[in-house]
Amino acid sequence: MLCYAYGSKARSKDTLGITINKDADPAEWYGQVCLKAELAEYAPVKGCMIIRPRGFFIWETIQQEFDKRIKKLGVQNASFPLFIPESFFEKEKKHASGFAPEVAWIANKYEGERIAVRPTSETIICDSFKRWVRSHRDLPLRINQWCNIVRWETEATKLFLRTREFLWQEGHCVYATSEECEKEVMLMLNEYEKLLKDILAIPVIKGMKTERETFAGADHSYTIEAFMPDGKALQCGTSHHLGQGFMKSFEVSFIGEDEEKHIPYSSSWGISTRLIGAVVMLHSDDKGLVLPPTIAQNQIVIIPIIFEKTKEETLSYAKKVFEKLQEHRPLLDNRDEHSPGYKYSEWELKGIPLRIEVGPKDLEKNQVVVVRRDNNAKEFVAFENLEKRVPEILQQMHNNLYAKAKDKLDRGVITAESWNSFLAITSEGKMAKMPHCTEIACEEAIKEKTKGVSSRCIPLNEKIENIKNKKCFHCGKEAAATVIFGRAY
Amino acid sequence: MLCYAYGSKARSKDTLGITINKDADPAEWYGQVCLKAELAEYAPVKGCMIIRPRGFFIWETIQQEFDKRIKKLGVQNASFPLFIPESFFEKEKKHASGFAPEVAWIANKYEGERIAVRPTSETIICDSFKRWVRSHRDLPLRINQWCNIVRWETEATKLFLRTREFLWQEGHCVYATSEECEKEVMLMLNEYEKLLKDILAIPVIKGMKTERETFAGADHSYTIEAFMPDGKALQCGTSHHLGQGFMKSFEVSFIGEDEEKHIPYSSSWGISTRLIGAVVMLHSDDKGLVLPPTIAQNQIVIIPIIFEKTKEETLSYAKKVFEKLQEHRPLLDNRDEHSPGYKYSEWELKGIPLRIEVGPKDLEKNQVVVVRRDNNAKEFVAFENLEKRVPEILQQMHNNLYAKAKDKLDRGVITAESWNSFLAITSEGKMAKMPHCTEIACEEAIKEKTKGVSSRCIPLNEKIENIKNKKCFHCGKEAAATVIFGRAY
Repeated sequence: MLCYAYGSKARSKDTLGITINKDADPAEWYGQVCLKAELAEYAPVKGCMIIRPRGFFIWETIQQEFDKRIKKLGVQNASFPLFIPESFFEKEKKHASGFAPEVAWIANKYEGERIAVRPTSETIICDSFKRWVRSHRDLPLRINQWCNIVRWETEATKLFLRTREFLWQEGHCVYATSEECEKEVMLMLNEYEKLLKDILAIPVIKGMKTERETFAGADHSYTIEAFMPDGKALQCGTSHHLGQGFMKSFEVSFIGEDEEKHIPYSSSWGISTRLIGAVVMLHSDDKGLVLPPTIAQNQIVIIPIIFEKTKEETLSYAKKVFEKLQEHRPLLDNRDEHSPGYKYSEWELKGIPLRIEVGPKDLEKNQVVVVRRDNNAKEFVAFENLEKRVPEILQQMHNNLYAKAKDKLDRGVITAESWNSFLAITSEGKMAKMPHCTEIACEEAIKEKTKGVSSRCIPLNEKIENIKNKKCFHCGKEAAATVIFGRAY
Repeated sequence: MLCYAYGSKARSKDTLGITINKDADPAEWYGQVCLKAELAEYAPVKGCMIIRPRGFFIWETIQQEFDKRIKKLGVQNASFPLFIPESFFEKEKKHASGFAPEVAWIANKYEGERIAVRPTSETIICDSFKRWVRSHRDLPLRINQWCNIVRWETEATKLFLRTREFLWQEGHCVYATSEECEKEVMLMLNEYEKLLKDILAIPVIKGMKTERETFAGADHSYTIEAFMPDGKALQCGTSHHLGQGFMKSFEVSFIGEDEEKHIPYSSSWGISTRLIGAVVMLHSDDKGLVLPPTIAQNQIVIIPIIFEKTKEETLSYAKKVFEKLQEHRPLLDNRDEHSPGYKYSEWELKGIPLRIEVGPKDLEKNQVVVVRRDNNAKEFVAFENLEKRVPEILQQMHNNLYAKAKDKLDRGVITAESWNSFLAITSEGKMAKMPHCTEIACEEAIKEKTKGVSSRCIPLNEKIENIKNKKCFHCGKEAAATVIFGRAY
C-alpha cells in the first residue's frame, strides 16, 4: 500500500515510459507526456479534454496564487453566464467578426434569438457595467472571473494547447481615463510575467501585438510569448487596452467630478489552462514530465530500498522521513510488488521533483539520498538537516529550470534585417527579430509565403531608435517597429 | 473616498431600502434583498443570473472551506468537459429519462450525434473511470469537480434558487464494496451538515429520499433539508449511493485481491450556489441582508461621526480602528456626502455583520460603539480590547443566527397521523411528519390533491419502531417509514 500525504493514487498496472525522444518528434512526445504522466486525456466529444488530478493540481495552484495577487490589486471575482445573446456580439462589429467562426450555439428552446456559448465575455460583462458604473466614484472597477470558455476549433486537438473547451481567468476593468487604463493593462502584463517566472519557471518576451494580431475589438493588445523547445512561440497571456469601443457599444458612461457625462475606457486580460501545456513542453524530457516544484502535486517521493533482513527498520525510517517532510506533499512508495528501479522510472515519468532513497546504509548513517528530477544530481542529506536542505534543493531546481529556459529563449531569438536571413532563421526553428512596416497586408504575405510564420510581438524593451532609417525586411517600406516573427501554437 | 481592505466598491447613488416586509410577500422580499444587497442580478438570457462580487464572495468562501475539508478526506479535484455525447445518457436509462426534459443541446457542428450541455456529470465521469480503475489498488477513487451546470428550467427564475445555469461541486467516488460506499455517502452527508452549521449557520434535517424523489439512476439518495421562513423546505445538498448501475452501464470493473473481476460501487454528492439563496432567505430581515460573519465580504464597517471641530482627530482615530481590525476585512466609510444615518441603512441593507461607530466622545474615552446587524445590540468596546472582543461578538452573532434558525426548524416540523391534521399543518406553512407507505403512486396523489406538497425525506434520526403497526396517513396501507412532507423550492 502507498502512503500519500496528498490523496493521490498510483496505478498498479505496468506504466510504459515515453517511447519517443523530445527532439525526434516533439508533437508525439508531448502527447505521450500529457497522457502517461496522467495530466489529461481526450474526451469523448471531439476537441475536448479531461484534466486529471495531477494536471488539475497545476491549474489550482496557478489559480490560488494569481487570485491572491490580483485581489491585493483591488480585483473582485464575480460570475457571468455561459450563454450570450447573439445581438450582444453584433454591438461590437469587429469583435463579432473576429469570433464568429469559432462560436458554438445552443440548439433548443431559445427565446427569440440565437444563444452563443461564451468564447470570451467582454460583451456580457460590459452589459452589466452599464448598470454598475454611474459615477466617477464607481471607478476604477476591477472584475475577474474564473470559468470555462468554448471556441469551436477546427484544427487538430492538442491537450491544453488547443481544445474546444478550456478554463481561464478573464479580468475586465473600467477606468475614467485612457492613461489609467493603459497603466493597469501594463500592470497585469507584468503580473503575468512575474507569475510565470515565480511558479512555472517560464521566461517570456513581453510585447505589443501588431495590428493583424490585435484582439478583435481592442485598441491595442499586449502579450507574453514563451519560446518552446521545438522553436515555436506560445502565447501565454494577453492584456488588452479596449479603448472606448466596448463602452460605447454597450452605453457605459459615468458622471465625472465635473458633473458631466463621460465615456470610460476598458481593459481585459487573461491566462488559461494553456499554461499547463507550456510548462510541460518547456521543462519535460525524454524520461517524462519535469515540473517546477511549486506546481507538483507531490514534491517528493520516498522510496525505501528493502532487504529482507532490514525491512522493518528501513520502512520505519522511511516513515520518519515521510512525517518530517509533510509540508512538501510527500509520497511514500512502499509497494511490495515493484522494484526500486521500476519505481524510479514511474515517478520520473510522472514528474515528482525529488526522489529520496532510503536504504539500510542510509539508516546506519542517519542520512538519505536526494535525487533531483531535472538533472539527476545526487546528494546525501543528514536526517536532522532535511527540513532545511530540501526546500533549498527545490528552490535550486526551480532556478535551474528557469535559467535553462531563459538561455534557450535568449538563443532562440536572432536579430536580422534581410529576407534571406529571415528565411534562414525561421527555417532553423528560431525566431527572427526584424525591422517591419507592421502593415496587415505585408504580414499576410509573409505568412503565406512561409506557410505559417507570423508576427509574435513588438518587444517592449526594443528602442524605437533601433529601426531609425531602416526598411521593412519584406516589402521595403519604411520600418515602423522591430517585430519578432516565428511559428506559433 | 472609501477605504476598503478588501477591494469592494460602494455606489454613490442613493440606495433604496427594501420596500416590502419579509412576512408580507417573501418572494418579492427575497428578490429585492438579492438585487439591492448587490448579490446577483438577472442575466440577459432568460433564466440565467450574474453573481456580483458580494454574492460571489459567499460562494468562494464555501468553496475554499469545503475544498479544504474534502481534500483531507482524500478527494482530488479534476475537470471534465461541459459537453456530453447523447449516447452517454442512453447508457443509463433511468438517468436519461430523469434528465431528458432539462437538457440543453448544442446546435452546430457536432459530429454524428447530438451533444448535451452537462446537467450533471455521472455519465462522462464514469466513462473515464472505466480507464482509471483496473485493480483493487486503484480503489477507493475519490474525484470532485467545481463547475457550471445547465438545466433548462421552464419554471419562473429565482436568483440562486432556480436558474438555468448554476455553479456547484460534484463528487464522484468508486468503491470495492457497497458497505464502504454507503459509509462514505453518509460521511459526505455529514460533511455537508457540518459545513452548513459552521459557515452558513443553517441547521438541517438529514434524511433519505423516498423512491419518488431519488436521484435518476441512484440506488438511494440522502439529503439535507433546510426550513425556510415562508414554510417551504429547501434541499441544500444530496449524497447518492449509485449502487452498481452506472458502473455496469459504463463497464467499470476491477481485479480484486482474489485476482477475479468485480463490479465496483459508486456515489455522487453535490452542493450548489443554491446555498447562497438559502442563507439569504433564512437570516435576512426587513432591513435587508443578514449574513453569518464568515461569508461576509466585509465583516465590519467603521463609520466616523464627524463634527467640523473634531473632524481630523475622529478620522485619524477611525483609521487606527480600521488598521487594528484588518483581519476582519473592514470597510471605513468616510464619505463626506452622506450622513451617518444614511450609511447605517446602506450597510444594514448590504449585510455587514458589525457596525463600528466612532465619534468624538468615543475618541475621548478611547472606545468605540459596536452594533450587531442581527439584533441591533450595542456595546462599548475599549480600543485596546478590540482585537479580542470583535471576534467574540462575531462568533456570538453566528451562534445566535444558528440558534434562531434551529428553533424555527424545530417548531416548523409537526408530527401527526391523520389526513386532516396533515392538511391543517401544511396549510399553516409547516412541515408534517407522517407515517407513510412510501409508495410512488400514493405520494403523487398527495401532491396532486394538495397542489404541490411533496415528501422531503425520511429523517435519519427517526426510529423504525415509531411506525410499528401504523397506517399510511393517506392511503391507509401499512406504514413503511416516517416521512416529512412539505412544500419545497
